[in-house]
Amino acid sequence: MRMYDIIAKKRDGGALTDREIDFFVQNYTSGVIPDYQASALMMAIYLRGMNARETARLTAAMARSGDMVDLSAIAGVKADKHSTGGVGDKTTLVVAPIVAACGVKMAKMSGRGLGHTGGTLDKIESVPGARVDLTEQQFFDQVRRIGLAVIGQTGNLAPADRKLYALRDVTATVSSIPLIASSIMSKKLAAGADCILLDVKTGSGAFMKTLEDSIALARAMVDIGEHNGRRTAALITNMDCPLGYAIGNSLEVAEAVRTLQGRGPADLTDLCRALAAGLLMLAGKGDAAACRVLAEQAVATGAAHTKLREMICAQGGGAQYIDDPGLLPQARCSRPVLARQDGYLAAMDSEAVGTAAVLLGAGRETKDASIDPAAGIVLAKKTGDAVHAGEVLATLYASETGLFEAAEAQFCQALRFADAPRPPQPLVYARVDRDGVTMLTP
Amino acid sequence: MRMYDIIAKKRDGGALTDREIDFFVQNYTSGVIPDYQASALMMAIYLRGMNARETARLTAAMARSGDMVDLSAIAGVKADKHSTGGVGDKTTLVVAPIVAACGVKMAKMSGRGLGHTGGTLDKIESVPGARVDLTEQQFFDQVRRIGLAVIGQTGNLAPADRKLYALRDVTATVSSIPLIASSIMSKKLAAGADCILLDVKTGSGAFMKTLEDSIALARAMVDIGEHNGRRTAALITNMDCPLGYAIGNSLEVAEAVRTLQGRGPADLTDLCRALAAGLLMLAGKGDAAACRVLAEQAVATGAAHTKLREMICAQGGGAQYIDDPGLLPQARCSRPVLARQDGYLAAMDSEAVGTAAVLLGAGRETKDASIDPAAGIVLAKKTGDAVHAGEVLATLYASETGLFEAAEAQFCQALRFADAPRPPQPLVYARVDRDGVTMLTP
Repeated sequence: MRMYDIIAKKRDGGALTDREIDFFVQNYTSGVIPDYQASALMMAIYLRGMNARETARLTAAMARSGDMVDLSAIAGVKADKHSTGGVGDKTTLVVAPIVAACGVKMAKMSGRGLGHTGGTLDKIESVPGARVDLTEQQFFDQVRRIGLAVIGQTGNLAPADRKLYALRDVTATVSSIPLIASSIMSKKLAAGADCILLDVKTGSGAFMKTLEDSIALARAMVDIGEHNGRRTAALITNMDCPLGYAIGNSLEVAEAVRTLQGRGPADLTDLCRALAAGLLMLAGKGDAAACRVLAEQAVATGAAHTKLREMICAQGGGAQYIDDPGLLPQARCSRPVLARQDGYLAAMDSEAVGTAAVLLGAGRETKDASIDPAAGIVLAKKTGDAVHAGEVLATLYASETGLFEAAEAQFCQALRFADAPRPPQPLVYARVDRDGVTMLTP
Repeated sequence: MRMYDIIAKKRDGGALTDREIDFFVQNYTSGVIPDYQASALMMAIYLRGMNARETARLTAAMARSGDMVDLSAIAGVKADKHSTGGVGDKTTLVVAPIVAACGVKMAKMSGRGLGHTGGTLDKIESVPGARVDLTEQQFFDQVRRIGLAVIGQTGNLAPADRKLYALRDVTATVSSIPLIASSIMSKKLAAGADCILLDVKTGSGAFMKTLEDSIALARAMVDIGEHNGRRTAALITNMDCPLGYAIGNSLEVAEAVRTLQGRGPADLTDLCRALAAGLLMLAGKGDAAACRVLAEQAVATGAAHTKLREMICAQGGGAQYIDDPGLLPQARCSRPVLARQDGYLAAMDSEAVGTAAVLLGAGRETKDASIDPAAGIVLAKKTGDAVHAGEVLATLYASETGLFEAAEAQFCQALRFADAPRPPQPLVYARVDRDGVTMLTP
């Protein structure tokens, strides 16, 4: 078998066999196939596509290129969720405790923030004392004991994906649906969960800007999961404006805690219930209606809030921060952003808002940059709200006042005003599972 | 300017600007742009194409990446011809002397054979004493003195093409018309001639298997030449069966000499007259009819034969070999291939015949292999001929009998027999010049 022939076949629109895909992934990971052949294949895949079987096999081969976490030593159904990345997205901190409180184990490896999107690990670490660097043994023990752990990646998961993603990043071959889907799902398959719920963001702050592309990505990922023996579903959710009001690590933890206490923002509360119910359905806890009730009850009874407190304590954080999020680290400086005109907030570019939060110190531009756990933005108005000149639009938080000017300018660029209100937008557009796509908007 | 953006633009079907193309060629040649980005761009070009302006600019940038031969120190019009590669193609040895005898200077750099196609340099070197490694000064002096020189490449011509071709060769991006056209023409532009005639082969022994592709390649090359200020035309010629009867270096020189003596095979004689007339037209020697007469007279008067003798002598070879080609090196062993059935020779795969000649020692599989100047094949029958069982189809020549078995098996694979004769095929299908395509078949 020759790499040349594999490139030529895909170049001409052919479907690669399982053996050809395995040959490529194994020999690229080991360094036998050079980058210049891999990048030619990636461009051919970008322009010619891959069918569902090819995509599933590529994903499986990338997953098997490194360690495969074996969660079978933990009794019961193990669930995982993944968000394609949003601004103000603290859903894991709400959904995982709800699901665990309902008896489905969440053994989750999460990521850090990069660019305008935040990461769950940074949020957890903003709770003083909380750690995410558990060993695999500690991770397993914690899931067995309390049914919930959210940690950084252990072991060597999907090294083929890491190498290939770095190559795609410099050869303009990232934004291909089968390649994005296989990259995300290779890590999910390696992480070992039985059930995977995907939160595919769509809109200005999302990687996928259109509903059509978001649904196509969701279908590709659901196909991959089901092809590889995992129960998989996806919700297509709105990222045209940030989720909730808080953007920034400790600010988001506080908002997540309030949501688990039943007093969170409506959009965040609704989305977390939908995601939790989706995971419970995959785990066999009943139909959609029954699972929504389970999720609501886990919040109403305080069981989910208790579960988050258990997890934070087990990972070294202080329980008091979960009981009273007002105790979390506070930024030294704050500055309100005031409206300069009357009208309606017609649009809020999530990506631009996320970038403003990075300028305040809440995120990182490069992998090795440090972050300020207390920095960020708390919105006072969101898309659709009426605004009067002089009203507060948002409050910026940072460690020094020198950061405000650039961040405020960036934040204001994200906003668009209009004379009339615009109709409210759906929060969840569609659900994708092995039975197909169900549109959830009227 | 970033290579990433150039790749993304072509990936999305955009046309690259002159500055983007120059940036790529300069920085790839110097090693600043890595192979893996160049191969992604090559695949994007392969699948998205390039327009005539982009193709002309890419070619010019590759030509300018190394030495540009300046023939302006030689008075008069300088002409060059190029064949896309055939089997039994000894036309340069006939056409160049005819054109030079008509007063148009031929300052030609040629190539060696590789795989199933032969190369003019190997043919010249099969004449005892003849050399092709002239210095640029010797080359210029010889062209000034006798109007004709055919040598190996001097200096560093189009290094960008050399590097890019090596990359395309291992990334399945060779067979793209704009990329093939720019590769061939970058070397022609750098070699400095004012007029360029291209012999684009079509059929089983050619790189381009269909007439449509051959015409497209010819149009692309003519566009490049004219865009860059060179008078350029192309003939699309038949390579469904080898040209003439001889395949192999000294065997082909002998056939070329006989053609210049007015007793060559009909197809070779006709094609050489058409090519010579095409070059004379480009050089302003008159219309098609007038140039054909000039070419015929150069043969009939013996002027063209004398010109070849002058060139071989100037390059160190013995005049006696050109006066009596029977004196050229002879193979020690020969073996006839006999027909096993009655019928008509319906097809003769040129590429397979060329490969049989390589097995006899006439060509090389790899660049550094040595060749046997006297080895090869002389056909006795060609496509369309009636054949009786026991008749000689061809004679094989080699330095040892051990080479015959595999070569004969390969040769016989090239032949297809039928019960009825097939209609004769055209020798020249079309002419392409700056005015467009003229079909020359009824």
